[in-house]
Amino acid sequence: MISLYTAPTPNGWKASVALEEMQLDYKAHTIDLRKGEQKQDWFVSLNPNARIPVITDHDNADLTLFESGAIMLYLAEKTGQFLPSEPSKRYQVLQWLMFQVGGVGPMMGQANVFYRYMDETIPRAITRYQNECRRLFEVLDKHLADHEYLVDDYSIADMANWCWVRTYKWSGVSMDGLEHLRRWKNSIEARPLARKGVEVPHKIIPEAVEKAGKTLI
Amino acid sequence: MISLYTAPTPNGWKASVALEEMQLDYKAHTIDLRKGEQKQDWFVSLNPNARIPVITDHDNADLTLFESGAIMLYLAEKTGQFLPSEPSKRYQVLQWLMFQVGGVGPMMGQANVFYRYMDETIPRAITRYQNECRRLFEVLDKHLADHEYLVDDYSIADMANWCWVRTYKWSGVSMDGLEHLRRWKNSIEARPLARKGVEVPHKIIPEAVEKAGKTLI
Repeated sequence: MISLYTAPTPNGWKASVALEEMQLDYKAHTIDLRKGEQKQDWFVSLNPNARIPVITDHDNADLTLFESGAIMLYLAEKTGQFLPSEPSKRYQVLQWLMFQVGGVGPMMGQANVFYRYMDETIPRAITRYQNECRRLFEVLDKHLADHEYLVDDYSIADMANWCWVRTYKWSGVSMDGLEHLRRWKNSIEARPLARKGVEVPHKIIPEAVEKAGKTLI
Repeated sequence: MISLYTAPTPNGWKASVALEEMQLDYKAHTIDLRKGEQKQDWFVSLNPNARIPVITDHDNADLTLFESGAIMLYLAEKTGQFLPSEPSKRYQVLQWLMFQVGGVGPMMGQANVFYRYMDETIPRAITRYQNECRRLFEVLDKHLADHEYLVDDYSIADMANWCWVRTYKWSGVSMDGLEHLRRWKNSIEARPLARKGVEVPHKIIPEAVEKAGKTLI
């Protein structure tokens, strides 16, 4: 059994989507980010960076891992799923996973900070991050024009990018004209286990989030 | 032989430091970022994201990879160096590698944008990113208080974080009081091959960079 410490955010979903898709036995523990639970000593002893998600694998000597990208890679290698064994394909998946970890995630995260959370409006910063997200979306769209998924079959690279891309409205980024990206997004949304993964630790109702303003992350 | 397409930036150095430390046979090709060479068709055909570094491994069916984190992982697995084989240690290295890819790198990158490159001064954004970098530095410092390197022996996680941390002055981030981080930084700087790696594709003289203003990245 795996313990997952998480919250309803794109990085949290990366872990829960992987756990669901791989049909692993796990228990989700909600970390209340609004109350700063991730900064409490017991949590910081699991992740010194005070960020969700974190897993502990009780079937593997209580191995504890933070960083959603590392968690996905661990789970893929543990189960032999959603990561090709053929070397050139394997590294292409890792490359598109890193594209999300170092690009799509941080840039959408910064768009959210300036567009949603900050108590001051800085148009130049909002525009900068929304434009950079749109540029990254266009890179994905162009690649997906002749690839069904990022690399051959559906993989952890698709899961990771999808967990962020699906929140494009929250970041204020347009998907207009990106029909390949939309097709790919819709095809992942149609996967029952992926859909279940983004309802962990609990379902988010987009309208409620919109109303709540700055309380999501 | 490996072809490396790179420029003198922290992400470029991640690849060249790994190549040097692993004593691999490679040839560096300079991409002139000021002239926008990374946006030319031939380069975009290697990396649709138009970013350095990119490698092509001519000893492995011309496997081409972008994303510096994926490149480091590929090289470590190709050579069996700087990545432990023991599973729990292996994933701890990947976790600290992801900490750099998704945290230290993007946050120092954004600090550089607002502190160095933008034609407008937005104090709130400068402070935000410099504070976040300092917070990440403190996470590293605290961890390094009782670890010589991030995980047991020197690994790709140390190389990746070092390539960024060493540029702290350029990002305007203070290292004051972070004695464990400084000790770790100095110990990597003392490695001849790491030092050689950060002089690829050519040496940067800090004072010249400072003078040149907005031309580094």
